[in-house]
Amino acid sequence: MRELEALKLLYRRLSVGDDCAIIPFENANLVFTTDMLHQATDFPRGTTAYTIGWRTAAVSLSDIAAMGGQPLGLLVALGAPEFERHFLEELLEGLENCCTSVKAKLLGGDLDHHQELTLVSTGLGIAARPVPRSGAKPGEAVCVTGALGRTAVALRLFEAGQIERANELFCFPPRVPEGLALGEHASSMIDISDGLARSLYQLAEASGAGFEIEYDKLPILLQVEELTQRRKDQQEMVLHTGEDFELLFTLPQGRLKDAQKSCEFTVIGHVLKERNVQLRLNEDLQELEDRGYQH
Amino acid sequence: MRELEALKLLYRRLSVGDDCAIIPFENANLVFTTDMLHQATDFPRGTTAYTIGWRTAAVSLSDIAAMGGQPLGLLVALGAPEFERHFLEELLEGLENCCTSVKAKLLGGDLDHHQELTLVSTGLGIAARPVPRSGAKPGEAVCVTGALGRTAVALRLFEAGQIERANELFCFPPRVPEGLALGEHASSMIDISDGLARSLYQLAEASGAGFEIEYDKLPILLQVEELTQRRKDQQEMVLHTGEDFELLFTLPQGRLKDAQKSCEFTVIGHVLKERNVQLRLNEDLQELEDRGYQH
Repeated sequence: MRELEALKLLYRRLSVGDDCAIIPFENANLVFTTDMLHQATDFPRGTTAYTIGWRTAAVSLSDIAAMGGQPLGLLVALGAPEFERHFLEELLEGLENCCTSVKAKLLGGDLDHHQELTLVSTGLGIAARPVPRSGAKPGEAVCVTGALGRTAVALRLFEAGQIERANELFCFPPRVPEGLALGEHASSMIDISDGLARSLYQLAEASGAGFEIEYDKLPILLQVEELTQRRKDQQEMVLHTGEDFELLFTLPQGRLKDAQKSCEFTVIGHVLKERNVQLRLNEDLQELEDRGYQH
Repeated sequence: MRELEALKLLYRRLSVGDDCAIIPFENANLVFTTDMLHQATDFPRGTTAYTIGWRTAAVSLSDIAAMGGQPLGLLVALGAPEFERHFLEELLEGLENCCTSVKAKLLGGDLDHHQELTLVSTGLGIAARPVPRSGAKPGEAVCVTGALGRTAVALRLFEAGQIERANELFCFPPRVPEGLALGEHASSMIDISDGLARSLYQLAEASGAGFEIEYDKLPILLQVEELTQRRKDQQEMVLHTGEDFELLFTLPQGRLKDAQKSCEFTVIGHVLKERNVQLRLNEDLQELEDRGYQH
């Protein structure tokens, strides 16, 4: 069974369809998420222990951001073939700095011998009004925070041996302040963890709606254009390479102005009634390929 | 660096010294714990997918029990070389049944391709008054729930090909009702995850105290004596093989009667002022070896 089919089976059985599970608790909602990362697919050669720590924390913190939540704390399970003091200290510093950057606390973890370096972070947060994936409505604006292409550029820099710049880009900021600001306004939200295209399809499926996206409106990381002038190449990096960890969300048109006052983002299209995802590119309207980043 | 030293480094840096991290939240305390299990060291040949699921949930639920907490929900990250539908369904059933047995909910998870079967469960619970490892005081009673030797017996049955009985024993009940009942009374508590001896030393270190334990008072699983009549062999299974997941705790003498009304347990010794662990065996008092179950 492929990972996607297996995930669908799990989702059906667990009735999970959001970036976090939601636990109503007293007058609030706890949001709760876990992510597994490992050497072979998540950390290219050249990734520092600090970056591994940062990224391990950031993926779960990003999921909490995507629910409009404030992270409270993080646990990390670490499996490694050996435990080298310097490595552990750097890793901890990355974990802690990333948590601190969004006012979360690294609370503890577990340690295990493992053939392959494997890290699992679990984040707990609180959301006044958790934003689901399922709320997009026809006519609403489709928006994205930051700029696209971050991980795509980093991967190419790792390959090219530009390790320092690659590590910097790999330490992405979890969009917690933006998520909190948007929590009041957004009708649906997700973090881009498998590429813009895949995330659009996930929002579309959960909401029972579709999207029309304008390629020329996409905020693209400067380094994408520095790396390659070939449009096809750029499109691949921006639409399908994924792991940008920016927030993708929909907003009722009436909320646009207030939302724009609360944080920075770009409007990239609008919600359609039909359940498909269209991309406007060079005046052509074509179906966007549902192809994402395969870890 | 050995796992123990690395854990100490992590503990110092993270100020963690309990079965769960504690997050004060409104008028309650959230308790939060994560555990990594994997094929090579945690699941002997013959372990069914159901048992793998049960045990994955149970280790985290047991940590919450050891804080005197009620589990709310569980997340599970699963790394596997392939995702086979029957395996996943059995695994989910084990996870869900274990959660349901203690009124917890399986809330979701993450899925990843991985060379080695690897599972990480993270439990979230709530405790009115979290019981630490650090509260044991001289003169108090040392107690344990259930009977010792469960995992030791199961491991031998797996080796002997008695797979069905081994799987049954491997699906241990997380002592949540006992933990909740004892939460009101116990001064310190831990779950036995690395053998009675190791857990005693962990309590002793956290509390700055010691213990005198009487071997003849230890509650021993019937099957231990069925398996072997050799005393040395039995002692190894009961004291050092570990992973019994029973609760080990201390009680002020004045609380003993009330605690005994609230749940079943056995008094096995008393707390000493001196920081060591003594075992009374055949009228000899000897230092108990600080040797645990190495995963």
